[in-house]
Amino acid sequence: MRKEVEISSIFGETLEKLKGQGVILIAGDPPNLMTIGWGTIGFIWGKLIFTVLVRPSRFTYSRMESSGEFTVNLLPDAFSHQLSLCGSKSGRDVDKIAECGFTLERGIHVTTPFIRESSIHFECRIIHKHDLLPETLDKGILKKYYPMGDLHRVFYGEIVGVFK
Amino acid sequence: MRKEVEISSIFGETLEKLKGQGVILIAGDPPNLMTIGWGTIGFIWGKLIFTVLVRPSRFTYSRMESSGEFTVNLLPDAFSHQLSLCGSKSGRDVDKIAECGFTLERGIHVTTPFIRESSIHFECRIIHKHDLLPETLDKGILKKYYPMGDLHRVFYGEIVGVFK
Repeated sequence: MRKEVEISSIFGETLEKLKGQGVILIAGDPPNLMTIGWGTIGFIWGKLIFTVLVRPSRFTYSRMESSGEFTVNLLPDAFSHQLSLCGSKSGRDVDKIAECGFTLERGIHVTTPFIRESSIHFECRIIHKHDLLPETLDKGILKKYYPMGDLHRVFYGEIVGVFK
Repeated sequence: MRKEVEISSIFGETLEKLKGQGVILIAGDPPNLMTIGWGTIGFIWGKLIFTVLVRPSRFTYSRMESSGEFTVNLLPDAFSHQLSLCGSKSGRDVDKIAECGFTLERGIHVTTPFIRESSIHFECRIIHKHDLLPETLDKGILKKYYPMGDLHRVFYGEIVGVFK
């Protein structure tokens, strides 16, 4: 049974996961899983916010657009194989949920599911989005990460619940 | 003498300050001080990022644009009067540094100064920026915070140092 937790207490841990093995973003119906290592957490418009970045070419992109929700799932270190698989394979080609052996449960405040095996999960409702702008992005970053374009869209999720 | 600190250890504290009495954003030469309560921290493009939001109408806005840098200063609770002053008065009308009795010191990795009386400060270099988009922003937020327009610009600062 999941319990709601105070976000400040797991903020550092979430940053470490992002910087390290990544976290799993879930969006859509049917849900798609994708490992991400980029995102920010903070406070805007009087709300706790989790921003995540998804490229238009990704399978998850259209699911973020249509559902307007997502969950972010932190996995214990033992799941590095699954995190690697969800970061390298596309949901277009592989049934990632079956391959990973994950059990999905319906979200508590959103309809998007979370991973039962996760140690912590965030439930988010998208309240803003915009694309990165090539003209105002650092030139070194543009060259390194976007030689073919496909600039990320930044999705601002209101954190409607954090559970462990 | 300031010492560099590990960001994960002060992430929760920074979020609490943002949500609570606010933090002081400094930008420009001469520097302007502004209390902010909105921002996010995370990891994008392999870099630690602090995003802050500034409205075009604010005195700080042109200073962010021209300097390309900023510092974020966390103050002890005893400085609530100064935080209130820097959030309510404009640097166009008041010498906030003198009014607050702050001592500014030149940044360690940036030229923008930090407040000596701060408990922690972040030094940031702007590597991306974009304006909030009225068409993709939640309608309730648009109505509540932007009845007169003046939508915030989001400045993405690469955190080049965190000190206490």
